[in-house]
Amino acid sequence: MQTYWPASSSTTPRYAGPVSFFRLPTVSAPDQADIALIGLPYDGGTTNRAGTRHGPRALREASMMVRPFHHVTKTSPYTRHRVADFGDCPIDPIDIQNSLKLITGHYASFAAAGTTPLTAGGDHLITLPILRALAKNGPLGLIQFDAHSDTNDSYFGGHKYTHGTWLRRAVEEGLVDPHRCVQIGIRGTRYAPDGTDFAETSGITALYIEDVYRLGLPAVIARIRDITAGLPAYLTFDVDGIDPAFTPGTGTPEVGGYTVFEAQQLVRGLSGLPLVGADVVEVSPPFDPSGNTALVGATMMFEILCLLSVGRR
Amino acid sequence: MQTYWPASSSTTPRYAGPVSFFRLPTVSAPDQADIALIGLPYDGGTTNRAGTRHGPRALREASMMVRPFHHVTKTSPYTRHRVADFGDCPIDPIDIQNSLKLITGHYASFAAAGTTPLTAGGDHLITLPILRALAKNGPLGLIQFDAHSDTNDSYFGGHKYTHGTWLRRAVEEGLVDPHRCVQIGIRGTRYAPDGTDFAETSGITALYIEDVYRLGLPAVIARIRDITAGLPAYLTFDVDGIDPAFTPGTGTPEVGGYTVFEAQQLVRGLSGLPLVGADVVEVSPPFDPSGNTALVGATMMFEILCLLSVGRR
Amino acid sequence: MQTYWPASSSTTPRYAGPVSFFRLPTVSAPDQADIALIGLPYDGGTTNRAGTRHGPRALREASMMVRPFHHVTKTSPYTRHRVADFGDCPIDPIDIQNSLKLITGHYASFAAAGTTPLTAGGDHLITLPILRALAKNGPLGLIQFDAHSDTNDSYFGGHKYTHGTWLRRAVEEGLVDPHRCVQIGIRGTRYAPDGTDFAETSGITALYIEDVYRLGLPAVIARIRDITAGLPAYLTFDVDGIDPAFTPGTGTPEVGGYTVFEAQQLVRGLSGLPLVGADVVEVSPPFDPSGNTALVGATMMFEILCLLSVGRR
Amino acid sequence: MQTYWPASSSTTPRYAGPVSFFRLPTVSAPDQADIALIGLPYDGGTTNRAGTRHGPRALREASMMVRPFHHVTKTSPYTRHRVADFGDCPIDPIDIQNSLKLITGHYASFAAAGTTPLTAGGDHLITLPILRALAKNGPLGLIQFDAHSDTNDSYFGGHKYTHGTWLRRAVEEGLVDPHRCVQIGIRGTRYAPDGTDFAETSGITALYIEDVYRLGLPAVIARIRDITAGLPAYLTFDVDGIDPAFTPGTGTPEVGGYTVFEAQQLVRGLSGLPLVGADVVEVSPPFDPSGNTALVGATMMFEILCLLSVGRR
Amino acid sequence: MQTYWPASSSTTPRYAGPVSFFRLPTVSAPDQADIALIGLPYDGGTTNRAGTRHGPRALREASMMVRPFHHVTKTSPYTRHRVADFGDCPIDPIDIQNSLKLITGHYASFAAAGTTPLTAGGDHLITLPILRALAKNGPLGLIQFDAHSDTNDSYFGGHKYTHGTWLRRAVEEGLVDPHRCVQIGIRGTRYAPDGTDFAETSGITALYIEDVYRLGLPAVIARIRDITAGLPAYLTFDVDGIDPAFTPGTGTPEVGGYTVFEAQQLVRGLSGLPLVGADVVEVSPPFDPSGNTALVGATMMFEILCLLSVGRR
Amino acid sequence: MQTYWPASSSTTPRYAGPVSFFRLPTVSAPDQADIALIGLPYDGGTTNRAGTRHGPRALREASMMVRPFHHVTKTSPYTRHRVADFGDCPIDPIDIQNSLKLITGHYASFAAAGTTPLTAGGDHLITLPILRALAKNGPLGLIQFDAHSDTNDSYFGGHKYTHGTWLRRAVEEGLVDPHRCVQIGIRGTRYAPDGTDFAETSGITALYIEDVYRLGLPAVIARIRDITAGLPAYLTFDVDGIDPAFTPGTGTPEVGGYTVFEAQQLVRGLSGLPLVGADVVEVSPPFDPSGNTALVGATMMFEILCLLSVGRR
Repeated sequence: MQTYWPASSSTTPRYAGPVSFFRLPTVSAPDQADIALIGLPYDGGTTNRAGTRHGPRALREASMMVRPFHHVTKTSPYTRHRVADFGDCPIDPIDIQNSLKLITGHYASFAAAGTTPLTAGGDHLITLPILRALAKNGPLGLIQFDAHSDTNDSYFGGHKYTHGTWLRRAVEEGLVDPHRCVQIGIRGTRYAPDGTDFAETSGITALYIEDVYRLGLPAVIARIRDITAGLPAYLTFDVDGIDPAFTPGTGTPEVGGYTVFEAQQLVRGLSGLPLVGADVVEVSPPFDPSGNTALVGATMMFEILCLLSVGRR
Repeated sequence: MQTYWPASSSTTPRYAGPVSFFRLPTVSAPDQADIALIGLPYDGGTTNRAGTRHGPRALREASMMVRPFHHVTKTSPYTRHRVADFGDCPIDPIDIQNSLKLITGHYASFAAAGTTPLTAGGDHLITLPILRALAKNGPLGLIQFDAHSDTNDSYFGGHKYTHGTWLRRAVEEGLVDPHRCVQIGIRGTRYAPDGTDFAETSGITALYIEDVYRLGLPAVIARIRDITAGLPAYLTFDVDGIDPAFTPGTGTPEVGGYTVFEAQQLVRGLSGLPLVGADVVEVSPPFDPSGNTALVGATMMFEILCLLSVGRR
Repeated sequence: MQTYWPASSSTTPRYAGPVSFFRLPTVSAPDQADIALIGLPYDGGTTNRAGTRHGPRALREASMMVRPFHHVTKTSPYTRHRVADFGDCPIDPIDIQNSLKLITGHYASFAAAGTTPLTAGGDHLITLPILRALAKNGPLGLIQFDAHSDTNDSYFGGHKYTHGTWLRRAVEEGLVDPHRCVQIGIRGTRYAPDGTDFAETSGITALYIEDVYRLGLPAVIARIRDITAGLPAYLTFDVDGIDPAFTPGTGTPEVGGYTVFEAQQLVRGLSGLPLVGADVVEVSPPFDPSGNTALVGATMMFEILCLLSVGRR
Repeated sequence: MQTYWPASSSTTPRYAGPVSFFRLPTVSAPDQADIALIGLPYDGGTTNRAGTRHGPRALREASMMVRPFHHVTKTSPYTRHRVADFGDCPIDPIDIQNSLKLITGHYASFAAAGTTPLTAGGDHLITLPILRALAKNGPLGLIQFDAHSDTNDSYFGGHKYTHGTWLRRAVEEGLVDPHRCVQIGIRGTRYAPDGTDFAETSGITALYIEDVYRLGLPAVIARIRDITAGLPAYLTFDVDGIDPAFTPGTGTPEVGGYTVFEAQQLVRGLSGLPLVGADVVEVSPPFDPSGNTALVGATMMFEILCLLSVGRR
Repeated sequence: MQTYWPASSSTTPRYAGPVSFFRLPTVSAPDQADIALIGLPYDGGTTNRAGTRHGPRALREASMMVRPFHHVTKTSPYTRHRVADFGDCPIDPIDIQNSLKLITGHYASFAAAGTTPLTAGGDHLITLPILRALAKNGPLGLIQFDAHSDTNDSYFGGHKYTHGTWLRRAVEEGLVDPHRCVQIGIRGTRYAPDGTDFAETSGITALYIEDVYRLGLPAVIARIRDITAGLPAYLTFDVDGIDPAFTPGTGTPEVGGYTVFEAQQLVRGLSGLPLVGADVVEVSPPFDPSGNTALVGATMMFEILCLLSVGRR
Repeated sequence: MQTYWPASSSTTPRYAGPVSFFRLPTVSAPDQADIALIGLPYDGGTTNRAGTRHGPRALREASMMVRPFHHVTKTSPYTRHRVADFGDCPIDPIDIQNSLKLITGHYASFAAAGTTPLTAGGDHLITLPILRALAKNGPLGLIQFDAHSDTNDSYFGGHKYTHGTWLRRAVEEGLVDPHRCVQIGIRGTRYAPDGTDFAETSGITALYIEDVYRLGLPAVIARIRDITAGLPAYLTFDVDGIDPAFTPGTGTPEVGGYTVFEAQQLVRGLSGLPLVGADVVEVSPPFDPSGNTALVGATMMFEILCLLSVGRR
């Protein structure tokens, strides 16, 4: 079997040589890997501060700090699967609907090849067209790390496709089964008394940050496992779920989130789940003076990559 | 009843339109609102790094991120009370004593109108002239979130009015009853073996950060409620009470503080107390490259606004 | 006559009090002023780095540094005309065509009232819908300070409305007379051997930066006056015309531009021309760590305001 | 006895007057103090992002915020011992081996004088030559706060002296007794399945961050005390042991570390141990836009200074 | 004769060793040097953005980049005179009048010793108390590099001692002879039609930036020499005279100034004038993200030091 | 003939897709191109602030802004020659001598293939090993844009290989003919009265910045052409030759340099010279908050690429 291994930081220092996710080879045909790392530099669904179009480059650059083996499991996804960087997904910076089509088309080829995609966004709208490509065999479960429910109906006089409405669309389109959807870290002021109304009436489980701390991390992990029921699910990790002291470089920060260590524990607790894909979204480099948001994003991508690898038969 | 409501972020994006606290209307006559949001751009009491004169503008700008409803209580202060932005209090950038007079005069008009002021500082000295205006019916209780006791006697050869001495003056002037004063988060090296000497001999309760973690948040909340005894109190929130990983943009940061989430829990625990006013102070934008300090400050202002609204009959 | 005057910085320091363009009053009805200062927080036409949506706020904040009288002419526009801040123009962050309509509609009301608009952008696409509102009596002349010709035909597979194509559209729509259009400061690598092809074949005069220095500023001024022929013209000032050492906070910086002093001389040289409106565009605060781009933008707005005032009968 | 006391911040504001560690006097002869504060501006052992050569200056500047008395113990090291700033250790920016010699020579004079050194680095390689000077009477114990084990064998084709290999060298050279070495906070991806192989086979105790949280701080303190066995030990504090939300300004940040408050608790728990020296390393000012890393480093230096003072008979 | 020489950057790298102006020794008795380098960390006269209190430290740090010999004259001031760092002047951060007294007192001792002071500010108000100490034998001439005339009468309801009024006070107090005063680089909008009214009616020569470029540098130099008439003069260099692309880190930037190279030519053109002292003021590090303002300030201090040395018999 | 063309920014926006110099293909065999773009991430020769090891990545990223055609010549180097990105040259971060060997070896393969290298540094020491590879047929001429002469003999006790001594070594080794070497922009204080002593006695022509402005750009160009005498020469462009208002992100900034526009004119004036290679060095991203230094560096690389292309038969 063709395998891939990151360029060695003992030979080429991390500041030298080509930049790719985790220093892995860059390939292009979907069947050249089992797990595909894909950049998605699109922020046309953003309703406030832009900049996540620059996310994939910052995540690749920060991923140079990530080495092949996980320090807890002492295993590497690269020994089990072929993992490679597939470059950036084509997008249309001017036209949202065309971008959605381009994205779905691109991911359909990975779905067809049986390759699991792990995406670096981009704003959160991108999860919708990815789900359209992946949910070909019926609705998926969803594990969403996020400060926001993203279930508003529309913005600015009826616009239905934004980073704050994508999940409502995904439910309406039958891409996810709301009873197998769980959100972790919801918080922040909202526009209506019950801003997670749709989420809750549709059957989505929203674990507020207060729930996370009240239940404790093991119980949260158990809830996520219960809700997703061992069925195929997609994991989406919005870096604004984390407290903005750790991840200030994001479009809509909400103070009072979990720490990165807590996020790591939660993600690790999901090992073994049958994930069909995942993304890390909403890293906005222009608002990230210290670069820590990108570093957190890249490290969480690796944690999630380990999940995808273990969960993939 | 005349009511006010924030401009809709679904109509006008948060980066557009006028800037006011929480996108509320700007008014001027004290009786036009029940709760007044006031900027106080003064840092003449600062003994080290300046810049809090720029705090009110940064807090207004960051407050554009805050929506009308609280995600835990699912209520909004704007449904209960008229809340509006009253612009900035007049100050004298050159003369401290004149500034103190101008501030007290300005707040006296709110006191006379029965309007509860919530102030965005400015350095911590500003709490003194506000208390002079509000403590007309006898000493108030005080709930102070802060890394510093602010009870030094004087600085630089006898100067008695600074952001490090204001509370001692407030006790001496009978504006606060020290036995109903409580400080949360005190820490950091000090000039004398017992730097909270005055605080303690006068009867103020200083809860060090070590106390906060030893007692746990519920017990801290209970202590604050005990000490303030259900009597009218003022709440002052110095952002340096929080750890500077969250709030680096402040004049005198002290490492090792509580998180923003913990601060939110503490503030929420005080719901129902009869607060006569409050402030958020010591946000210094020139030292806040990521803007997170202003975001934390604005969000805490909203948390405190909810307290003021619930506590106001 | 109702007149307006900036709030005094001798009473209220520049860091205090309301933020509006040049500390002028904020009004709303188009006939309440002779010259209208308008924010236009839109960057949906941007093909590379976004962020100019945040331009109007940064320009207003920086404009607090600008005092009422010009140091060379020793006159003030406020003694001759009513000048006021009209807030931000409505826009649709998601839909370009709708934004273009909203903008044209907004400016049509100023045109109807005979009020001269001076706009703070936003990306350069916004000039197109403004011209649609102002060119009601036939094509206008155009004075464009810019590094780029902005006469590409389309981007990304046929998109015709971007900040790099707006002028071609304006010529095609008959909003400007290309023989009365002049561009100052054109430079930078390009996609085709003759990237200003359309500009030149259509009759636009492109003064490259090399022309500017070869001719000298007085000759450049004379050329601009010749080309615009004393007929009504619009002035658009893209801050990327200036060298990015002065204005790094912009989406498409091109090194090797003129200095701010030179830009000031050029603008002052146009005094007396019958300008029907003007804008300052492409200030992108997320890329402006020192804030100098906003300061340059605000100061150039004042220089242009003086032009508009002198040029208005 | 000659004693030293920091310049008073009540006389000279913290932003004025000479810059030295904690505003203490600067002296030069090793026997002029009991505890020596020494800058070591060397980063020639760095394998990735440089900049710690600028650490000592940033730490001195930040240490102006530190006052003489500890807020928990209410004592000051300056009442018990003579503590002074000895300036910077000589180094050779171009030649690693010569730098190691210069450093060992410099510290040997402090060892000879019986003066305890507390060093501000510099990258972590500097601990090796310091240990060579201090371990004259047999191997020392080692308490290492760090995200990395620093026990790789070599880098870049056989280089044995780097900030990632120094501890392996120290063990090999018999400078530390691995069975009395303990590392706190180890984490982050690694180059081999068991990247702490050498550490563990040699007898070093590596407490991963997961161990720290599983055991709890009191148990971690107990483990450190057990392992060091009451024998002379050296304490090295790499700021990357702390989570990079607190200390982004370092060369090799690893997300998911302990908080500064937790680090303070751990350090305080070691009071009374017979420490022969200590350092704070890996502060890299070019990557520290808010300055918080330097503030954390300076505050931890003071915490450790208190340890050294109590531990010194 | 006792002489002083900078620490060698060939022995100790510029990032290591003690920080003092130009790496010179630090002394304290006024007669220990012929030319005294003095920090004056005071910004109590500032009417807008503060931060120049941090100027002296940033200037000392940046001055580490300056070597002993001038590249045009190929001479060094240190071969002709004893030049040393005298630390910071005492100030009172809270009380302007007391600060003025402390400053005058401090400089009187240098005047008494016949030592020429070269000061690093601080805001521009500090020039007033320095002049009070130096103008003991009658009014001095004044060479002022500045964007602002600093001859306003008062601020904020009558305050007469600010960085915008100091020169008017100096004229009124007879410290300078207005007919021997010249300002270079005046520009920027102003509060009144003729904002340099006092300057001009009193006899001060204000060379606007337009004059500078119209006359050319040699003629400007000639004018300065004419006006100062070979009599004792003081040179004050406000970094805001330079264009803020070069010096953004200042409290009141005005776009459209001269370049640093031009400033260097002007200063060098004054060689031989009998200067009794000089200062570099208004460097505000919190607004200087790239550090270039401090580097410019330190380099101009060296250029001026060369002037003082040549001009001193 | 195999030709290469940059990825289209009209298809893939500049913030998307792979990062390579000018969006060109990445290849590896030296004979796959006529002109090779090579990154050289080495800063081991730096005597002060490090960080140029990160230069190649920042230059590649900034080069995404550069389009294929030059706006003055209206030609593209890509129509004449095969130009491609060859990735980064291998280096040894720990050992200078080994790095010099690795670099010379790498470039020897390009010399053997007859491929002209254009290098993105790295610190200025890297020019030495490149010259060793290229000067195989006798000494080369040298055109050096720089603030510093780089002809010191040694640093820090005899180290002969640094970014401040490389040219002296190149002369001594016979790699360049000093009588065909010219330096443009020399300035800044120095360690000895005549810091360019070696340069001048050996026959190198040092054009100080004062010479540049005294002679005027056309005469400077003529001098360079005279000195290099139409013989093969190497061009080295240190970004610190430019004024640090334009290029603050460099290790040893010297105020008072030429502008970028002037640098462009000078470079363009050298068209047709037979250049055998070139480099752009000393871009240090950690000191470049606005990113302008990298943008200037990348644009100058393109200007120089055009020179190389025209000069190559």
